Amino acid sequence: MRFEVTILGSSSATPIYNRNPTAQVLNSNDHYFLIDCGEGTQQQLLKNGIKAQRIDHIFISHLHGDHYLGLVGLLSSLHLNGRTKPVNIFGPPPLKEILDIHFKYSETNLRYPINFRPTQNQFSELILETNDLKVETIILEHRIPCTGFKFSEKKKLRKIIKEKVEELNIPVEFIPMLKRGVDFHDKEGRFYSANELTTEPDEPKCYAYCSDTIHNWAYLKDITGVSTLYHEATFLHDMASRAKETFHTTALEAAEIALKAEVKQLLIGHFSARYKDLDPLLHEAKTLFPNTKLALEGNTYVI
Amino acid sequence: MRFEVTILGSSSATPIYNRNPTAQVLNSNDHYFLIDCGEGTQQQLLKNGIKAQRIDHIFISHLHGDHYLGLVGLLSSLHLNGRTKPVNIFGPPPLKEILDIHFKYSETNLRYPINFRPTQNQFSELILETNDLKVETIILEHRIPCTGFKFSEKKKLRKIIKEKVEELNIPVEFIPMLKRGVDFHDKEGRFYSANELTTEPDEPKCYAYCSDTIHNWAYLKDITGVSTLYHEATFLHDMASRAKETFHTTALEAAEIALKAEVKQLLIGHFSARYKDLDPLLHEAKTLFPNTKLALEGNTYVI
Repeated sequence: MRFEVTILGSSSATPIYNRNPTAQVLNSNDHYFLIDCGEGTQQQLLKNGIKAQRIDHIFISHLHGDHYLGLVGLLSSLHLNGRTKPVNIFGPPPLKEILDIHFKYSETNLRYPINFRPTQNQFSELILETNDLKVETIILEHRIPCTGFKFSEKKKLRKIIKEKVEELNIPVEFIPMLKRGVDFHDKEGRFYSANELTTEPDEPKCYAYCSDTIHNWAYLKDITGVSTLYHEATFLHDMASRAKETFHTTALEAAEIALKAEVKQLLIGHFSARYKDLDPLLHEAKTLFPNTKLALEGNTYVI
Repeated sequence: MRFEVTILGSSSATPIYNRNPTAQVLNSNDHYFLIDCGEGTQQQLLKNGIKAQRIDHIFISHLHGDHYLGLVGLLSSLHLNGRTKPVNIFGPPPLKEILDIHFKYSETNLRYPINFRPTQNQFSELILETNDLKVETIILEHRIPCTGFKFSEKKKLRKIIKEKVEELNIPVEFIPMLKRGVDFHDKEGRFYSANELTTEPDEPKCYAYCSDTIHNWAYLKDITGVSTLYHEATFLHDMASRAKETFHTTALEAAEIALKAEVKQLLIGHFSARYKDLDPLLHEAKTLFPNTKLALEGNTYVI
């Protein structure tokens, strides 16, 4: 089962050096979830060969332009390209007002419904549950209300041992039960043990997205043990006071959080325009947390 | 004196085939005027090496997203990059409301003033006059209120005949007078004729920008005789009824307008996503108006 994230933009505030503002696409079992939508996201989707029409859920962390200014354009293009199925949008309450005003003055009557689910910034909550995963907010601390998002795969199904199932001629209709770990008896009273016919399922994976935030420990509990943590790392640690002042995090602080949260992999992004070369940020984070990667545009990271 | 336009985007509605939504920069004697500002304009400015901070005037034709969704991002970046000098914005009245709502929720207090000058869609008017040029609106007919813009160079100064001025030892302080065509006598009573010491000035040039509009003759008077006409040509003429329905123009109609308006050069743009290859549009327009060019991204056209 696929569970991976593609980076569409990882620049902070202003686009520069061909780095675009924040946007990512999470692919969970071929369902697409867009996380933030900076200016140019629809161009980046095209460039990376990701079909925008496959996106059904969009999550906006906060209302700084570099995280949402591509949304109206994307929604308009979905409309112009004939979409009829709903788009589910999660974000701060005023986002609805912003969308409405655009569509009012452009006199656009979208051909598809938008289901808008406002987020709040007081406590973490479950905002979406699908067959495959659940999504919860992470309460971050930025200059304006901001939430991260945690995508957790549900417990997976056990894996059938094909040879045994075939050997015993198990009827196809019993396979889903076995995958769920249910034993059964057939009409002749023979017993079939799920444990003998299946193996343990893959461990569910979890992706946490934290951008933008000052370094604090309040959300540590929400991200502890996740498979992959994306954390903003706007500055190098020699700019720690500037990071604090602007409610951002340094690469070293992001690594410290990853270490304490005992995550398996750290992706850093939201790079300040002051860094043309990103290697120093990577190097700094790796001194504390070796399994760190730069969130680079066009790259896909398995979670 | 420089008078040229650089195309930053010429796609209609949705970005595609690496074509971005509408934006152009007019360079008049090294003063920069931004005309429309589709999503990704700030990225396009960077890519084309045009310093955004040099733009003092921005003109928005109408409130369809592909003509203005890059504006908030551009204004935010100017702010973040330390701008203090004012930005003058011309556009439909609700644009002010749209900007205000973005800056309200992002809690952005711009470091520079925005002078917003609303346009109206009832009659053509003079909206700006500088030392070098004047700008008037063109009343277009689209699904929502839309104005084009005409940039007219003012009468230029006569050109000094350097050798004669040096030979006669004309004092430097008289040069500006001569350029304006004023004769003078020196203290000894000698007469100096401006006509003899200068030649005729270059003819003032004029650039008209018409996007988006249905084909009509109402604005013909406003664009007659301009040096370069940019006109939208969303469709080929076999789509004339679709063009009418969506309040757009075909390449053939744009050429017909250029011909009747007796312009010197026609640039066509705002190409529909249905045309990957633009040559048929160019070919169609050229059958009526040979001096037609495609408005291609990254290209600069002398007016």
